[in-house]
Amino acid sequence: MFSISKRSAVEPFHAMDVLAEATRRRASGLPVISMAVGQPSHPAPRAALDAAKAALDDGRIGYTDALGIVDLKQALATHYGERHDLEIDPARIAITTGSSAGFNLAFLSLFDAGDAVAIARPGYPAYRNILSALGLRVVEVPVAAETQFTLTPESLEAAQRESGIRLKGVLLASPANPTGTVTGRKALAELADYCAANSIAFISDEIYHGLTFAGEETSALAVTDDAIVINSFSKYYCMTGWRIGWMVLPDRLVRPIERVAQSLYISAPELSQIAAAAALGAEDELDVYKASYAANRDFLMRRLPEMGLPIASPMDGAFYAYVDVTRFTNDSMEFARRMLTEIDVAATPGLDFDPLEGHRAMRMSYAGSEAEIAEAVDRMADWLN
Amino acid sequence: MFSISKRSAVEPFHAMDVLAEATRRRASGLPVISMAVGQPSHPAPRAALDAAKAALDDGRIGYTDALGIVDLKQALATHYGERHDLEIDPARIAITTGSSAGFNLAFLSLFDAGDAVAIARPGYPAYRNILSALGLRVVEVPVAAETQFTLTPESLEAAQRESGIRLKGVLLASPANPTGTVTGRKALAELADYCAANSIAFISDEIYHGLTFAGEETSALAVTDDAIVINSFSKYYCMTGWRIGWMVLPDRLVRPIERVAQSLYISAPELSQIAAAAALGAEDELDVYKASYAANRDFLMRRLPEMGLPIASPMDGAFYAYVDVTRFTNDSMEFARRMLTEIDVAATPGLDFDPLEGHRAMRMSYAGSEAEIAEAVDRMADWLN
Repeated sequence: MFSISKRSAVEPFHAMDVLAEATRRRASGLPVISMAVGQPSHPAPRAALDAAKAALDDGRIGYTDALGIVDLKQALATHYGERHDLEIDPARIAITTGSSAGFNLAFLSLFDAGDAVAIARPGYPAYRNILSALGLRVVEVPVAAETQFTLTPESLEAAQRESGIRLKGVLLASPANPTGTVTGRKALAELADYCAANSIAFISDEIYHGLTFAGEETSALAVTDDAIVINSFSKYYCMTGWRIGWMVLPDRLVRPIERVAQSLYISAPELSQIAAAAALGAEDELDVYKASYAANRDFLMRRLPEMGLPIASPMDGAFYAYVDVTRFTNDSMEFARRMLTEIDVAATPGLDFDPLEGHRAMRMSYAGSEAEIAEAVDRMADWLN
Repeated sequence: MFSISKRSAVEPFHAMDVLAEATRRRASGLPVISMAVGQPSHPAPRAALDAAKAALDDGRIGYTDALGIVDLKQALATHYGERHDLEIDPARIAITTGSSAGFNLAFLSLFDAGDAVAIARPGYPAYRNILSALGLRVVEVPVAAETQFTLTPESLEAAQRESGIRLKGVLLASPANPTGTVTGRKALAELADYCAANSIAFISDEIYHGLTFAGEETSALAVTDDAIVINSFSKYYCMTGWRIGWMVLPDRLVRPIERVAQSLYISAPELSQIAAAAALGAEDELDVYKASYAANRDFLMRRLPEMGLPIASPMDGAFYAYVDVTRFTNDSMEFARRMLTEIDVAATPGLDFDPLEGHRAMRMSYAGSEAEIAEAVDRMADWLN
């Protein structure tokens, strides 16, 4: 009998387990409201849907070049020009199968087994799980009010001193999941400079760009050409299930990424690439959705604390409320399970994001419709009483 | 300045480099015929296209459960019943982002760094490249006429004896790329038994199922419940660019695969999952395409040897001619480059499939239209003269 690998013993992505349970309950007719996974309830922009339908009429949906179709790379370069006033050579852009592929490709091309990479705690659990599966060491750096909930040269220095581990990489998300932290230009530049001075690869997760409600949204590309930028059409562009994202790479990393991507992914889905190129022009439509998230955010910032669930982090960007559930439980897994089975409201236990302190936190996505969020909050208010 | 990892120094997937060059030449107006990558020239089945369009009208394309939507898993279980007379529990099926994700998930969940996995030489290059990127040892076992171009207990024993390496896994493709070898039921059972007796994981790549022209097409599931079966909608179902495949797993591997997939892929593209479920009923339409591949195959089996390019392997299944180019060159890379630049015919150098002897082989896909293949052969005949 064959054996199962040690490295597959990563933690589950609890949000996905909650999603699966929510799917089962919904299929059995229960009125589930899911705030568990980070996905807009809106469909992709009209232009993206139209472009996809036209492509379906047009002929074969085939493999593309491993790093993506030229039109999409060009459209993204134009986007950086228009939105960020940055000139980006399309040859530095790699189209990926969601940001998930971007992380995997970045980690594989930058790090060898045993190398150490710093991430924020709390942070996106897939970082930790992918790093572990690839044999890399995860250095979780706690973020809190003292450090404006972001990574700083000082906190990275302290983490290395305490662990005795020298970092090969730093991964920062801004806006961040689940904290909503938006790291401004000055802090980003300090971090990039620190990484450059210490031969540390700087990976900037910008998947929540476009969804900043307070603070200054800056791309790492504005402060350095040497960052590995990862982004996606999943969040602002409402295209989660299309699995389509991109990276902007330092020149010398393009070919290594291409080599690995050729074998590991062949290419990103062609239909999604075509639709994504069309989505880039749909900001007017998408900003309407953004306004509804803003309304949800205002509502939750007011209602959750009233219910005894104080907001535990800045909530300046992305679309999550990360709340402290100490008043009700010391076991966020059990809290999430009960909330789903007793009132059919799905949210994600903080343990996903923070293995040390997440037992007393929960993350709720507010990317759903305003009506859904209001209904979920009503159910929770009754339930918590 | 950050450094680039050693493990990203995998070989390029040369077929993808040829594809990229072919794309560039075609975009500049040149009359390129590509036999480089293994993809049908036909679109996905009508029913798949219709299902995709209906889903686009229907609402959001979102994340699905990490292992896929229930309808598609159920449809695949039914397919195994109807086509293979096998009863497969849908809970053993994992939907993946193409077979590429299947390989990556299988390797990560079965093997730890340093473990050794046997593959056939010549064989699909991504096996070797993914295994290397994940820190696994690749044991290439030469296949040739003496062993009916497949892996056998004897050849695996010999490879272990000679290398001094004990295998943790064996990966066999049937029908095989590029050789076209179809491994029959008896040989498959012997291999499965050998693996079971030696605690070796047996991975069966069945991506070319449905495309057997001679010999006996058998799923490993017919001889064991302990195989890891990898399949895809890319080839027989003409859905390459949709990036959608599946695995059938031993029960105890389902949860480890799910855990890794949650973080590494989130889920396969939803639209592709919906379309794939519809494609499973489209065998009548697809068998017409298969007949055109059969015509191409007959044509190439006659014409290539006449041109001085003898067929180097069985060519019983899949849709490739693997030919010996010794009469013209000892450098298949240069041969491929010249063929593309001089007559705009793209094919893949044998070095992709066989690092030792592939310098005197080329692979040509015959999944294109009959007219294309005939035109390509005409150009080659003139050129080689």
